[in-house]
Amino acid sequence: MKRIADSTVRRLSIYLGFLEGMERQGNATISSDELARLGGTTSAQVRKDLSLFGSFGKRGLGYSVSELSVKLREILGLGREWRVCIIGAGKIGAALARYRGFTERGFIVTAAYDIDEAKVGKRWEHLTVRPVSDLEKDALREKFDIAVLATPAETTPAVVKQVVRAGIKAILNFAPVQIAVPTDVTVRTVNMAMELEGLSFALTNRGETAS
Amino acid sequence: MKRIADSTVRRLSIYLGFLEGMERQGNATISSDELARLGGTTSAQVRKDLSLFGSFGKRGLGYSVSELSVKLREILGLGREWRVCIIGAGKIGAALARYRGFTERGFIVTAAYDIDEAKVGKRWEHLTVRPVSDLEKDALREKFDIAVLATPAETTPAVVKQVVRAGIKAILNFAPVQIAVPTDVTVRTVNMAMELEGLSFALTNRGETAS
Repeated sequence: MKRIADSTVRRLSIYLGFLEGMERQGNATISSDELARLGGTTSAQVRKDLSLFGSFGKRGLGYSVSELSVKLREILGLGREWRVCIIGAGKIGAALARYRGFTERGFIVTAAYDIDEAKVGKRWEHLTVRPVSDLEKDALREKFDIAVLATPAETTPAVVKQVVRAGIKAILNFAPVQIAVPTDVTVRTVNMAMELEGLSFALTNRGETAS
Repeated sequence: MKRIADSTVRRLSIYLGFLEGMERQGNATISSDELARLGGTTSAQVRKDLSLFGSFGKRGLGYSVSELSVKLREILGLGREWRVCIIGAGKIGAALARYRGFTERGFIVTAAYDIDEAKVGKRWEHLTVRPVSDLEKDALREKFDIAVLATPAETTPAVVKQVVRAGIKAILNFAPVQIAVPTDVTVRTVNMAMELEGLSFALTNRGETAS
């Protein structure tokens, strides 16, 4: 398979979201026009995105909602379980440990770590906090797929090094920093403060950046 | 001023985060090397990013933490108030209406809207829910800077049209869709489900996408 652009993967997520809504409403088929309209894109783009993964749909009949959902879930690697460790047993980490959207998508939080000696060994959500220094050893046995970083900016670079050494290939980053990883590690960042500052920057520099 | 890339604006946010941490710890100066190390970038990149906005720092002495913070806050359009309306008075909207990070950065939620007749007129957080059909009229008087979208996928495209007609130039999008706007409107999207699916996609297609 060719390297798929991030933007394509994002659209696949969006299509799947619509298809799941359609399934709940009992709709059997959907056209590429409808998917395009709902996703804010063109039907040519929808057909191009889906053609990357094989042949779907029948000319004039559209796509079968259930078939296409199954296929998209498979493409996106859903419908199986991913083992997740949370690093940073603070407030954000706790909110994430309780987040139902994780388990709904098969992301099972099986361990929590912190760098702070005072937190290590404490019960926290349904887990016991472990020292980050154990991560590499634990990962051999527990085979974490994903590390969720809920660490402060200052300690994050050191934690990222340990995650990489532990052989974990996917990171969901809530730390307010950009992180540097080898090319075989995938990072997605969620940082609301940064998004807000991006908007205030754009509003402040509107006239000037229009040229 | 030249058009500044999104990635640059994100790094400015990150630098500011570090500088605020440094201020709290009472540090007076910081070198571009330190900023680079904390931000996971190079000192050449730091100097290039900051030089877009004028001349900072003294050779050999580094940057004054307080001066540079003030300047970055100004560049990012912080330190003033932005008027925010939330559209979608559901669970996500409610969590956002209570989110302290908004007010800390000067984002003041002054109105809430919903498309659902049953919600309109109800007290919700510290606001009364208004019908989305009033948005355009209200915006004339209340001059919203930012619309926060916490709407379901299905209704979002119609809501976006009303936001654009109301002359609002910045959107923070929590709806699980990509949205289409004119080029003078800035959109930032926060969608954790999509980030998770991006990671599971990358993990599922690792071997195959490495080529």
